[in-house]
Amino acid sequence: MKEEPLRVAVVKNILDANSRIAQENRKLFDMHRLRVINLMSSPGAGKTSLLEEMGKRFEGQLKIGVIEGDIQTTLDAERVAAAGLAAVQIETDGACHLDANMIQNALADLNLAALNLLVVENVGNLVCPAEFNIGEDHKVMMLSVTEGDDKPYKYPLMFRESSVLLISKVDLLPHLRCDIEKIKEAARSINPDLIIFEISSYTGQGLDDWHNWIQKLAAKK
Amino acid sequence: MKEEPLRVAVVKNILDANSRIAQENRKLFDMHRLRVINLMSSPGAGKTSLLEEMGKRFEGQLKIGVIEGDIQTTLDAERVAAAGLAAVQIETDGACHLDANMIQNALADLNLAALNLLVVENVGNLVCPAEFNIGEDHKVMMLSVTEGDDKPYKYPLMFRESSVLLISKVDLLPHLRCDIEKIKEAARSINPDLIIFEISSYTGQGLDDWHNWIQKLAAKK
Repeated sequence: MKEEPLRVAVVKNILDANSRIAQENRKLFDMHRLRVINLMSSPGAGKTSLLEEMGKRFEGQLKIGVIEGDIQTTLDAERVAAAGLAAVQIETDGACHLDANMIQNALADLNLAALNLLVVENVGNLVCPAEFNIGEDHKVMMLSVTEGDDKPYKYPLMFRESSVLLISKVDLLPHLRCDIEKIKEAARSINPDLIIFEISSYTGQGLDDWHNWIQKLAAKK
Repeated sequence: MKEEPLRVAVVKNILDANSRIAQENRKLFDMHRLRVINLMSSPGAGKTSLLEEMGKRFEGQLKIGVIEGDIQTTLDAERVAAAGLAAVQIETDGACHLDANMIQNALADLNLAALNLLVVENVGNLVCPAEFNIGEDHKVMMLSVTEGDDKPYKYPLMFRESSVLLISKVDLLPHLRCDIEKIKEAARSINPDLIIFEISSYTGQGLDDWHNWIQKLAAKK
């Protein structure tokens, strides 16, 4: 097979180029003393709903910018803009993740000096986004309890790369065959340093703890 | 940028090579008059639970083979084997989808002549698997109502490529802000020919219609 070595080389080139641009992004963030979160999950785990809650909670206190990544549509940017956040939408046109170059291009549309925090809402995908650094301070992943308690073992990279795990939709637990203790045990077996929050944007459960974490992070500016 | 043309060329090479092997798989399936389904969804939408239900329903009637695709673990193959299905596990070791070559290798471990139906449970990912034909008769996608009603617009390729949409976990609808009519409307706006089943493996709702569809498909052998 001639394809294989070429393919491996190209993947390495792509990741090297990404890493270089991620470092440029990082320098820009540092210049503005801006903290940046790369928020990742499966489709529909509740990333945008959480951002809407953060918009309400920090209104008038923290200026939060959001870069929205979707394959198509500007639906999410419209939702978070309606919640008072400064939003930019990236449509990846088929690409399954955001990379550092897409972020670099989007940054031109945000007034970084005015922001206290930047959240990048990645494409809904539990696999590919974890491979691409964008210059962030923290990878934060979200896993909905509706996805089941075996997911850390099946998608280990994202759990390994993340600083924080948000276990979302915990209000649905009474209706599911899902053991949240198993999720936490499995996640910590892969990444013992994970900070875990159990949340529901629907009922508000657990959001105070998450918002406190965000407030401390943004205060470092 | 020098990377871009090279990258595009390599992606085309990969898809061309995949297409060639998919045709070889197709010939093998035809030789055995075997119907093949490529089952795709986000992580945790309920693919494996549905296969468990199919194992119970068709016990002693249809011999169903399953190829399980996961990044890591053999958890799903163990579950469907326990439900009486002939299971083979592919661990993709990081890859975000199954391709025709992985399927070709796995077929050596199945007695195709003895099967009435083969189901390939793809890696949990609403993006990448839709790009890779494996020689299947039908792409069948599953979307859980917990993922929200905006997903067809945000992940159009999989909806476009699929023959069947299984809307899963409908028992949870009373607890969600999700309008199932919006899901169907959006999905049909992208693919007017989609056959749609509303199901719950938890309560059994809608499974009879799906099983009837499967029975008719397998009867063509």
